[in-house]
Amino acid sequence: MSPKDEESKNAKLLIQAGFVHKEMAGVYSFLPLGLRVLNKIIGIIREEMNAIGGEEVLLTSLQDPAVWKKSGRWDDKVINVWFKTKLLSQGELGLANTHEEPLTNLMREHIASYRDLPRYVYQFQTKFRNELRAKSGIMRTREFIMKDLYSFSRTEEEFRAFYEECAKAYMKIFTRAGIGDHTYRTFASGGSFSKFSDEFQTTCQAGEDTIYIDKKKNIAINKEVYTDEVLSELGIEKGGLSEERAIEVGNIFPLGAKFSSPLGLAFKTDDGSTKPVIMGSYGIGPARLMGTVVEVLSDEKGMVWPVSIAPFHVHLIGLPGVEAEAEKVYKELANIEILYDDRTEVQAGEKFADADLIGIPYRVVVSKKTLEQKSVEVKERKNGHIELINIGELSKFLSRFL
Amino acid sequence: MSPKDEESKNAKLLIQAGFVHKEMAGVYSFLPLGLRVLNKIIGIIREEMNAIGGEEVLLTSLQDPAVWKKSGRWDDKVINVWFKTKLLSQGELGLANTHEEPLTNLMREHIASYRDLPRYVYQFQTKFRNELRAKSGIMRTREFIMKDLYSFSRTEEEFRAFYEECAKAYMKIFTRAGIGDHTYRTFASGGSFSKFSDEFQTTCQAGEDTIYIDKKKNIAINKEVYTDEVLSELGIEKGGLSEERAIEVGNIFPLGAKFSSPLGLAFKTDDGSTKPVIMGSYGIGPARLMGTVVEVLSDEKGMVWPVSIAPFHVHLIGLPGVEAEAEKVYKELANIEILYDDRTEVQAGEKFADADLIGIPYRVVVSKKTLEQKSVEVKERKNGHIELINIGELSKFLSRFL
Repeated sequence: MSPKDEESKNAKLLIQAGFVHKEMAGVYSFLPLGLRVLNKIIGIIREEMNAIGGEEVLLTSLQDPAVWKKSGRWDDKVINVWFKTKLLSQGELGLANTHEEPLTNLMREHIASYRDLPRYVYQFQTKFRNELRAKSGIMRTREFIMKDLYSFSRTEEEFRAFYEECAKAYMKIFTRAGIGDHTYRTFASGGSFSKFSDEFQTTCQAGEDTIYIDKKKNIAINKEVYTDEVLSELGIEKGGLSEERAIEVGNIFPLGAKFSSPLGLAFKTDDGSTKPVIMGSYGIGPARLMGTVVEVLSDEKGMVWPVSIAPFHVHLIGLPGVEAEAEKVYKELANIEILYDDRTEVQAGEKFADADLIGIPYRVVVSKKTLEQKSVEVKERKNGHIELINIGELSKFLSRFL
Repeated sequence: MSPKDEESKNAKLLIQAGFVHKEMAGVYSFLPLGLRVLNKIIGIIREEMNAIGGEEVLLTSLQDPAVWKKSGRWDDKVINVWFKTKLLSQGELGLANTHEEPLTNLMREHIASYRDLPRYVYQFQTKFRNELRAKSGIMRTREFIMKDLYSFSRTEEEFRAFYEECAKAYMKIFTRAGIGDHTYRTFASGGSFSKFSDEFQTTCQAGEDTIYIDKKKNIAINKEVYTDEVLSELGIEKGGLSEERAIEVGNIFPLGAKFSSPLGLAFKTDDGSTKPVIMGSYGIGPARLMGTVVEVLSDEKGMVWPVSIAPFHVHLIGLPGVEAEAEKVYKELANIEILYDDRTEVQAGEKFADADLIGIPYRVVVSKKTLEQKSVEVKERKNGHIELINIGELSKFLSRFL
């Protein structure tokens, strides 16, 4: 059933298809189908982060105010999305909305000399953000898993080299997740240590951001820094730019010594002097990426998952009267990730509609008609292409695409 | 460095060896070594839960008071470990300390008829508990991942059959994690719907519980229900029991209709009547299990990990002067999970002490002396057994144990 209180396409489809459950505004649980997608996205991100030298950790949600007071970010006026709570024993705690402070503090025990650097530390960890208004379905929520990586470098040059490497890894992730063609590295506002940060923006009407795309150079500029001065600085001509709505699916951010200085994360250089560690942060929200794929790749019938992050690869439907044969096909495809709709109380039409809604890449239908030709019907979700495949060839046929 | 403010052996060793980092009392981050162990434990539990029909989901930490008011457990006097927080928009929220209420509420959308049952739903999800005093290192914390499974059955018989199946799966998990010989299924106090619940207690001086073990029958009784009446009911003779301290590493609990009734989770039976769903809950804390393994299997030199949950399988040490040869051994063992201590500024003695502390099952040392015999030295951590192994045979030798 399509939920009435959801405006966003991703939440409507994901709830209707049983991928997520809305607990309350901005808070969603993941059901088996949704969790499979989320975990596949996490798996892709993990592979790409490990490939560039990332070390995985798991920090905590409960936060000690003392650490955040050093950077000045405990104050609700500085970070306006804090959830705070109280210890029964004594004192206030925060729920982490990001992890620069606790990780910088932790790394003081692991970094002392230039020999200990560089380090690239990441995690998949729940963030809590007290958003005034929850919106955009699973794309902007009050509780969500985030992949956040933090880089610790000796010099600006070393930092920049990794920054570019991570930008490439990010594009690989978005390409593997199926939205590479719609995603642009985008100049956005920086902070005290850099004029620009980089966002990865996926063009989509449902996006909260507006970007200006230079399709020739394959880059974009966020509206927030879209001035004549910036355009000339970047050597981009206004004429060829196209304005589009977009979803921020990732960001990378130079931090300089913003956190290492106040928190005391420094290292001894090889000439014996002491310098603050140069930092950067690199974020991707797996659930936002999942929601973006739904927004960008769905059609009027439902979701369309790329093989890489689909909850299953094959959706098997047996029509009435051929239950035993469908069961046999199911067992023969044991090495394939397969969702078997073996409901007997549901009509064929409803099963087909559900298969389109759920959006698994290949639908396999076993019916009396197909069995007459010792075959099953294979339909590709993304283009509707239908083929009759001999049952003996099915596993081989499917494995070419999976 | 061994921490001064930790009394428990598990926290001392895990912090000293760099497996975890203490954020504050009862709140620990997992560093790469510790996270690898935690994830291996989670992997074992996941396999065993899937094997008995578990469906994995991921519920939320943020909790809507409305759902908990139905069961009467929103009240701090009923659950005395609530962390609560406030929405900026309006209203109070809770941080989940368990998930009976939200899951029972959610399942109302998936269970209507006897055909929809039974269902076994589980997750690995963070629990927050506002413990007055944090203690026992990573075994009793204010924030921890828990595997909680909930069973939804049509009848008491169907529930009991799964309950016994899950009890067997739990013993498999503890056996696979290396503490099966020390762990007893233990009668403990039940609740309104059952005289007893079952705990899984691992004997250990550091435990918070006292149990009475019948070694012949391979079961135990928690002190909390240790009365003459209970003993006679269970047909256990007082004489043969041994009193021991123990750590509760898991529990399974009959819930009857305690949550399904107030939350309205009912089903139509095949005769058309409506009945509340019969529930049970089944918990294991992966971090507590990890801490228990440290408490039970360590020796005076440090931790001793079983292969099944060790952060790595081989700890490779190259002594001064043979760096190139050690590197070569490292590359030859590429298909083995290997931690390579390639530090050049550290003495051999310190490397050996660190290897003992970290507790990886097999230590491989490359030195001039071993190379004279075209060999490396392999030491088994758990028994100190040392063998010289020809380099050409090393991979084959190790793979026998891994």
